[in-house]
Amino acid sequence: MTVTVAIDCMGGDHGPAVTVPAALDFVRKHEDVRAVLVGLEEKIRPFLVNAGDSRVSVRHASEVVAMDESPALAIRSKKDSSMRVAIDLVKNGEADACVSAGNTGALMAISRFVLKMLPGIDRPAICAVLPTVKGHVHVLDLGANVDCNPEHLLQFGIMGASLVAAIEHKDRPTVGLLNIGEEDIKGNDVVKRAAELLKDSGLNFIGNIEGDGLYKGEAEVIVCDGFVGNVALKASEGLAQMLATFLRQEFSRNLLTKLAALVAIPVLRHFKRRVDHRRYNGASLLGLKGIVVKSHGSADIFSFGNALERAADTVRSGVLTRISERVAEQQTIQRRA
Amino acid sequence: MTVTVAIDCMGGDHGPAVTVPAALDFVRKHEDVRAVLVGLEEKIRPFLVNAGDSRVSVRHASEVVAMDESPALAIRSKKDSSMRVAIDLVKNGEADACVSAGNTGALMAISRFVLKMLPGIDRPAICAVLPTVKGHVHVLDLGANVDCNPEHLLQFGIMGASLVAAIEHKDRPTVGLLNIGEEDIKGNDVVKRAAELLKDSGLNFIGNIEGDGLYKGEAEVIVCDGFVGNVALKASEGLAQMLATFLRQEFSRNLLTKLAALVAIPVLRHFKRRVDHRRYNGASLLGLKGIVVKSHGSADIFSFGNALERAADTVRSGVLTRISERVAEQQTIQRRA
Repeated sequence: MTVTVAIDCMGGDHGPAVTVPAALDFVRKHEDVRAVLVGLEEKIRPFLVNAGDSRVSVRHASEVVAMDESPALAIRSKKDSSMRVAIDLVKNGEADACVSAGNTGALMAISRFVLKMLPGIDRPAICAVLPTVKGHVHVLDLGANVDCNPEHLLQFGIMGASLVAAIEHKDRPTVGLLNIGEEDIKGNDVVKRAAELLKDSGLNFIGNIEGDGLYKGEAEVIVCDGFVGNVALKASEGLAQMLATFLRQEFSRNLLTKLAALVAIPVLRHFKRRVDHRRYNGASLLGLKGIVVKSHGSADIFSFGNALERAADTVRSGVLTRISERVAEQQTIQRRA
Repeated sequence: MTVTVAIDCMGGDHGPAVTVPAALDFVRKHEDVRAVLVGLEEKIRPFLVNAGDSRVSVRHASEVVAMDESPALAIRSKKDSSMRVAIDLVKNGEADACVSAGNTGALMAISRFVLKMLPGIDRPAICAVLPTVKGHVHVLDLGANVDCNPEHLLQFGIMGASLVAAIEHKDRPTVGLLNIGEEDIKGNDVVKRAAELLKDSGLNFIGNIEGDGLYKGEAEVIVCDGFVGNVALKASEGLAQMLATFLRQEFSRNLLTKLAALVAIPVLRHFKRRVDHRRYNGASLLGLKGIVVKSHGSADIFSFGNALERAADTVRSGVLTRISERVAEQQTIQRRA
């Protein structure tokens, strides 16, 4: 099976300077993948010099969705944007997945408009992988939905569990609910009701998880409202940056600390690689009738490459079928209840 | 002016073994403070041997609120708990502030029931200090209120700004609103409406702050719903613990890395002191007609001592008057509008 990935080459802070080299690396690494580079041809071509690969093609798109553009405007007025054309390629079967580092809101809106939702799913959710003490965890939603009801949180649980089941070949991944305490009585009404739905869902629901549990590996899937998930994720990014700044400052304080740094550098490098957020780049937009992966806007070549890998893995694992089946089972459970 | 602090000695994971020594240190350090140790006398006395200080007294209370006890039950049935008696001392003027490391929900509920709210404030909020790249930030609410409306968020802004103005002698501290994007259009309806109220409030409101902005020093006060604040705070704690674990693992990997650790230890110690969360222990319960400070349940002597310092500083700064004045001004602004 060949996997074809449509790449919105214009998205992100660096555009083709990052997306095109990452695509070339990606194709070189895997014999079974093809990349369709979507965007302004005259901006993409310069990065393709001496890179004649029959598995890389360019699809010209005359417009670009700006990072701060309103999603509604992007849908209405930019029908030939690189983002839209890349998603259209998934819709009409020319590509198996689309990857973009562009405007998240526009990517969500256009994906939903073009691809439509899977039956039984109301809203798409952004699902990313975070490192934990024990390995990693899939968390959703991370910002697509800022006003969730309990049914949405249940759907996130089903989608997240289906994704992990498909990609990691786990039969019944554990699912936790992000809350402000572990006891059932904690949280707001939406979360309390969501816990009841998750308990009765047939999922391997293990209960409430507090914020610090995100990094403890307490569950394989953690579900939350997009507002909470987004703030928690970004707060973590901010804290990590602050700690890195402080560590650098401490090691460059004087000659002695600088010498200590020289000795410690190999260890610190190893540490840095281990917690490198670029390794976790690439969030899945789940719930759509097609595979769309969002890269961080600031991604570099290594980081964007990981988003491409995630897209290919998702295609190979057959996640869409898995989610659909799981939703159908769920509807049977509900009808019985 | 002498500051008298009533200490719920039975609260927290360690009870009198931590609270009593911390109280003794606190009284030794400041000539103008008095401590009333509230709790089971027979549990407290052993820690007072050879510590005869006329500024330390014991007030027996026959009951203890358990860490997982329901707040409603604690109010109704434990009228002689150490927590309740400590708060009663504030109510009847025998103490200027109360500090407890006990059950947060019970502390909130009993404080509210006994002390009542300041005029114009609907709900108490938990306000803590977090470190930032530039210094520190006051954040509220961190878990008292899990379903806030826009008016509550405005009140949090007023209370937080009043606290910083009083304690840090700043005329118009900057106030930010925690959100999932910096643009006005981002966020859920509650947050959008809160932004409008904050803009028209006369506060020095600087707009939306994203999760990573918590640690960037972008504002002196950041307001948020208690659910979001609690998750963000605990996610940060979890991440910091994970990074510390990884760093330890990397430095103890083999003989070479252990040698590197020996050289790096002084630098790492300095780093650790700098980000030591115990230095920031002690969250203010704002909006009450009295000063109540919540310590982390797991606090050690150093950490609990910082919560006592916070209580004394808050008393000295005249925060309650400041909040009341600011709320009255706000009501004038609203009447004019």
